Amino acid sequence: MKIAIIGNGGVGKALIRLLENKKEKMAEEGLEVELCAHMDSSGAVLDAEGISLKQLIRHNEKNLPMKDFPQIGVAKAGVEEILKMEDLDVLIELTPTNKETGEPGMTHIKRALKKGIHVITANKGPILLAYHQLKELADKNNAQLWIGCTTGGALPSVNGGIMDMAGADITSIEGVLNGTTNFILDEMKSSGCSYETALEKAQAAGIAETDPTLDVEGWDTATKLLILTNVLMKEEKQLSDIRVEGVTKITPADFKVAAEKAGKWKLVGRTEKNDSGLTMTVKPEILLPDHPLYGVDGKNKAVRYTSDTLGDLTLVGGASGLIPAAASVLRDLMNLHRGYRIPNERR
Amino acid sequence: MKIAIIGNGGVGKALIRLLENKKEKMAEEGLEVELCAHMDSSGAVLDAEGISLKQLIRHNEKNLPMKDFPQIGVAKAGVEEILKMEDLDVLIELTPTNKETGEPGMTHIKRALKKGIHVITANKGPILLAYHQLKELADKNNAQLWIGCTTGGALPSVNGGIMDMAGADITSIEGVLNGTTNFILDEMKSSGCSYETALEKAQAAGIAETDPTLDVEGWDTATKLLILTNVLMKEEKQLSDIRVEGVTKITPADFKVAAEKAGKWKLVGRTEKNDSGLTMTVKPEILLPDHPLYGVDGKNKAVRYTSDTLGDLTLVGGASGLIPAAASVLRDLMNLHRGYRIPNERR
Repeated sequence: MKIAIIGNGGVGKALIRLLENKKEKMAEEGLEVELCAHMDSSGAVLDAEGISLKQLIRHNEKNLPMKDFPQIGVAKAGVEEILKMEDLDVLIELTPTNKETGEPGMTHIKRALKKGIHVITANKGPILLAYHQLKELADKNNAQLWIGCTTGGALPSVNGGIMDMAGADITSIEGVLNGTTNFILDEMKSSGCSYETALEKAQAAGIAETDPTLDVEGWDTATKLLILTNVLMKEEKQLSDIRVEGVTKITPADFKVAAEKAGKWKLVGRTEKNDSGLTMTVKPEILLPDHPLYGVDGKNKAVRYTSDTLGDLTLVGGASGLIPAAASVLRDLMNLHRGYRIPNERR
Repeated sequence: MKIAIIGNGGVGKALIRLLENKKEKMAEEGLEVELCAHMDSSGAVLDAEGISLKQLIRHNEKNLPMKDFPQIGVAKAGVEEILKMEDLDVLIELTPTNKETGEPGMTHIKRALKKGIHVITANKGPILLAYHQLKELADKNNAQLWIGCTTGGALPSVNGGIMDMAGADITSIEGVLNGTTNFILDEMKSSGCSYETALEKAQAAGIAETDPTLDVEGWDTATKLLILTNVLMKEEKQLSDIRVEGVTKITPADFKVAAEKAGKWKLVGRTEKNDSGLTMTVKPEILLPDHPLYGVDGKNKAVRYTSDTLGDLTLVGGASGLIPAAASVLRDLMNLHRGYRIPNERR
């Protein structure tokens, strides 16, 4: 299987190490991966016969730009040359997320799919903005579009909804999908501190970003809920269809109310089918101990699906970190290799 | 897709209704199922052009034996004639479980696989006794063997371990896999009653069987743990390799100990890889609130996998009942139709 990886951030680097470390495991299933192109913002290296993973790992360990990669026989080029390569089977798109335009990932993904090249992406932007359009493009060109890493990293949220719920109609989606807010709410519960103090602790621990707005105002959760809803319920909703409330206004007094009920505050993303259509919310909720998402603490994430015939399924996991994120890209690659075809769009 | 169903108990009947009710949903994916043969203990009906599902559902509603099925053009026969049919794509094996011999399911499955017919089964017996042998037979004949319904019904325990953990090495399996004992332990906790009283309540509620030995002595959990271990860790263990302790000796005093720790008793099946190999146990354990299986109450089931690269994954669900069990057979059928190939055995 000839693949190209665009993007050499933490996940890209971890993936290259995994491709080397899991070589034997993949070979057991008849999967031999040749990395034929790889690029970061400095440029691309191309080799139709396969770039040496070992050499690339050593190069990355020194934090050198891709344009200085020394392998003899590799051509220095850019994304144009990658997308013009013949016989490429899979493009792995790992450029940074842009939620306004989806670029540059959007263009990379479209051009690959048009050529019938399968795409695996961890890039939320294009999926958030244009999943159905991209999936239809994939269908039309007999290509596969795998997005297992876009919502919750290693948590098999999208793929679980597709594979583990196959044949059932999903009637609701509930999720604790953001590690930062989950950490903050846990911290407020256990120490009784204010929101501001908990946020500072999360920032000091490297869990919250310097500008934590997207997480704490609920937009990261809303983005993931939107992807799950559009993909698994075949909806065409937008972020503006979700009533979003973050955790910034929650006070120690609110935690007293929760404690009286033996409950816990969680930032819950929720899509429900009802008589009037579909309701989508992101807001802090008090979950009681018998709720399947009650125990999802710290940096953990979880999603719960209810369905017509398969009952409820709750998936808890999704360890944070670069290796689990890279492993979830590898999971998509292996499931693609095993022949799985995500059903075509029919709308 | 031409299929045959052997077995017309509750799950078989529910599956036939689902095949009718989900016709449109399957057609959206290009899956058209023709039921070409069906049998119960009274005999078989065969029609290469497809038996009328609507007529079969009406027949089943009257609880009539299959030998009296009136559709014109169907041949009355037995299992021999089914296994001799040409062009059959899938055999769905739903005969009752026999954990000593695996029969009659073992013979049905072997004969189908030898002819290159895919098999989906909910029958634990043959899988417990001879999974690897059957899987190798499947591999050799380019057939697929799907066993998603053998461990926990609608809980995607086997398939989750295969698909959601693809590319990772599973290093431990933990499960609350038996609804009856889970109900009994919950009852003892909430009412403070004795084991005997809780068992009587479970029997009165139709949850525990008249002879509850297999459940309460831990053998049902052990059976499921064994299947998960052998399939997902490629082991060749037997029931005798598991140290099994049931819930029959647990007393109200034990619940006081758990309450002091804010814990809950659960019957846990556990396989762990360690330096000395593999340890397999089934025994009551006190789980604390931060354990992912702590909240799995009542008739619910759950399994937790830990892995080298994808972190932990806990799956909670598996609603009891005939429809969820049938829906999990349908799930296997749809995932098979979508092209998934469970990797060949390499041992």
